[in-house]
Amino acid sequence: MLIATRQIEVEWGHCDPAGIVFNPRFFEWFDFCTTGLFGHAGLRKVELIKTYGIVGVPLVATRARFIRPSKFGDIVSIESSIVEFRRSSFDVAHRLTNGGELAVEGFETRVWAGRDPADPGRLKSMPIPPEVIAMFR
Amino acid sequence: MLIATRQIEVEWGHCDPAGIVFNPRFFEWFDFCTTGLFGHAGLRKVELIKTYGIVGVPLVATRARFIRPSKFGDIVSIESSIVEFRRSSFDVAHRLTNGGELAVEGFETRVWAGRDPADPGRLKSMPIPPEVIAMFR
Amino acid sequence: MLIATRQIEVEWGHCDPAGIVFNPRFFEWFDFCTTGLFGHAGLRKVELIKTYGIVGVPLVATRARFIRPSKFGDIVSIESSIVEFRRSSFDVAHRLTNGGELAVEGFETRVWAGRDPADPGRLKSMPIPPEVIAMFR
Amino acid sequence: MLIATRQIEVEWGHCDPAGIVFNPRFFEWFDFCTTGLFGHAGLRKVELIKTYGIVGVPLVATRARFIRPSKFGDIVSIESSIVEFRRSSFDVAHRLTNGGELAVEGFETRVWAGRDPADPGRLKSMPIPPEVIAMFR
Repeated sequence: MLIATRQIEVEWGHCDPAGIVFNPRFFEWFDFCTTGLFGHAGLRKVELIKTYGIVGVPLVATRARFIRPSKFGDIVSIESSIVEFRRSSFDVAHRLTNGGELAVEGFETRVWAGRDPADPGRLKSMPIPPEVIAMFR
Repeated sequence: MLIATRQIEVEWGHCDPAGIVFNPRFFEWFDFCTTGLFGHAGLRKVELIKTYGIVGVPLVATRARFIRPSKFGDIVSIESSIVEFRRSSFDVAHRLTNGGELAVEGFETRVWAGRDPADPGRLKSMPIPPEVIAMFR
Repeated sequence: MLIATRQIEVEWGHCDPAGIVFNPRFFEWFDFCTTGLFGHAGLRKVELIKTYGIVGVPLVATRARFIRPSKFGDIVSIESSIVEFRRSSFDVAHRLTNGGELAVEGFETRVWAGRDPADPGRLKSMPIPPEVIAMFR
Repeated sequence: MLIATRQIEVEWGHCDPAGIVFNPRFFEWFDFCTTGLFGHAGLRKVELIKTYGIVGVPLVATRARFIRPSKFGDIVSIESSIVEFRRSSFDVAHRLTNGGELAVEGFETRVWAGRDPADPGRLKSMPIPPEVIAMFR
């Protein structure tokens, strides 16, 4: 499966008074990395939304383990890949390393979602097009 | 066990182009709610840090399930409680409801952590004082 | 003119490694407070968007002076009011006090904006309805 | 004077329900760019803090003009330079362009600050070392 890698320099404003990355930032980065992974597969999210009439790929579940803290000035690297596709959902794994050592493991389950035709204020899962899945092989 | 409840109005800037809360915000709110839960138990985090020489209660793991989206203008309610204390770590459960219905379930494992005396740039878990645990009963 | 007041407890995750609020948070709070000010005037932003077909009241300019830092655990108070209405724009002043002393002064110029009919990807200013302005007196 | 340039891809989570960058993000980016400008001058903020015993270069004032919105998927470019040094403060100008056109102008006044020896909970401005200033020529 395709793997996308992204480097991020830990900024002052990413960190809390203990001097380490405030944890919601990791989920923000994982979200950015999932978008980047699609882009790396030739599927820019901006285009996917227009082409397939989806509103996005919202999270249905996520989890993370924080193994070692990352500090201001550290340069971290995040490897992201889709580990499973199902009919209308998929799982993304993220491995964040810092100085070559595993620092955070993240895992997202996302759904391919459009507006519910019966109620446009709600989201509704839709089947993932096979040509989208094919781009990750 | 003690339960703390907090209401949050979903702001424009909490939401993404799909008009729903961008997921890292939930982790931010859970973090705020854990601080609030300690405060509700009479243990202000600001004071705990001074009294016990800890740097905080950093996350070692977290997870969440997103059951229904929350939109700009919604008022959500988060119930937080500590579901287990161990020697130097503890688990916090968060239930976010929106319009009376469960919208997000969050779960955090946190550690009572100080500076490592051997290497002040690193964190080190410490036993949770029994008088702290007693305040949540 | 109508004044809205909001209290915010400074959270751990609002602060940077110097232990003080990371400045973009103030702009986030000012944005929330402007929404709150409209709500206080009986004009919920969610409803305004539906009623008047606007996309929002985007910023065209903002500035702030940071007089004294705010720290984790501080409770700050923000007073917000519209200081001038023009044809399609208006100015909001925010005064953030901490322990009774002025800590941050903010100032926003915002525009009443809809989609440009000639190019829906662009925003276009529109005249502010007089009944909206009347609600702030 | 030295100019540092940084490109940022506008992410989904940077944008609000109007589909444009939520304005506090610009202030976050300007903060990151100021750090980057120091780094570009060979002065990594992490090292400056250790070498000179400062707590950072906190903002005392900032302002921005938002000329055109930036949308999800846009790639913006920020040019940052220090436009004036004074005894213990300095001004940074940021020019954010999008598709070659000026989109946001930002301006920061920052202070070279340490802990107040008389009250370590407070910050105190300190003279900027001449060798620091020299690095920006």
